[in-house]
Amino acid sequence: MTLAETVATTREALTANPAAGQATFRANTDLVGLTEVDVRVRGHRFKADEPESLGGTDVAANPVEYVLAALGACHAITYRVWGEHLGIGFDDVQIRVEGDIDVRGFFGVDDAVRPGVSDIRVAATLRGTEPLERYEELHRQVEEHCPVQDMLTGSVNVKAELTVEG
Amino acid sequence: MTLAETVATTREALTANPAAGQATFRANTDLVGLTEVDVRVRGHRFKADEPESLGGTDVAANPVEYVLAALGACHAITYRVWGEHLGIGFDDVQIRVEGDIDVRGFFGVDDAVRPGVSDIRVAATLRGTEPLERYEELHRQVEEHCPVQDMLTGSVNVKAELTVEG
Repeated sequence: MTLAETVATTREALTANPAAGQATFRANTDLVGLTEVDVRVRGHRFKADEPESLGGTDVAANPVEYVLAALGACHAITYRVWGEHLGIGFDDVQIRVEGDIDVRGFFGVDDAVRPGVSDIRVAATLRGTEPLERYEELHRQVEEHCPVQDMLTGSVNVKAELTVEG
Repeated sequence: MTLAETVATTREALTANPAAGQATFRANTDLVGLTEVDVRVRGHRFKADEPESLGGTDVAANPVEYVLAALGACHAITYRVWGEHLGIGFDDVQIRVEGDIDVRGFFGVDDAVRPGVSDIRVAATLRGTEPLERYEELHRQVEEHCPVQDMLTGSVNVKAELTVEG
């Protein structure tokens, strides 16, 4: 089955049975070093860490960098999926993502400074031969349907609980 | 320098010179397969993809899973950094993260459904011998200072631009 067929079949199935759209994704993280973290997502394993400038051991990207990477990857994949859905072909797409943060928030130096990234810039460069207005339409659909962009621009309900074992 | 010393030195430097808190993080993503994405973050390289159930080739976690992983890793590292800062020791901490999504939003089946994750549950299990109220205080500081949690519960300004090359 091509990706366009998968998208069409999935849309039909979700229209017929809206409850089938519900899904839960999971990740497990384990602090295994000073700031080194082992991550498991289904069968996939990777690491996170902090750069040495923030006191870490830099064996991998840090959590904020993973969020920026996730946003870029989400844009890239959404270009593909919505391109297939709308019949808009392209040769390739590259995404650069930058995020500005004031680390005084994380370190608790000033409570008025938020701990996270305040501003993100996403620059996509797409190569293809369709009319420009088709790619501009695709870009609009990507902005509207990219899950990670929605999670960053909107608000997600996060509930965190701690269990202590002696 | 121990991590506690790095934190103390960094806090002093940021108090003396608030402008030094400004930092920009970056990620580059390149769609190299059907839904397979190559990611570069400084010298670190990894991949993102979609599972086969969503039409992908599943060579790596998907973007939403990376966000959940980033949140778990951010909690883990924030436990460490704030534990060092407050002098609250522990043996280890493991974090499970779950996020609920309705994929009808991503596929554009129902415009009333947001494309991203609506609800996230973070379950931390910490082993250590300090009094419980110390760990509860640490948990509160983690929730207040974790950058990724702030980016998800609050709103980040995202500006996306497309450049088309023929």
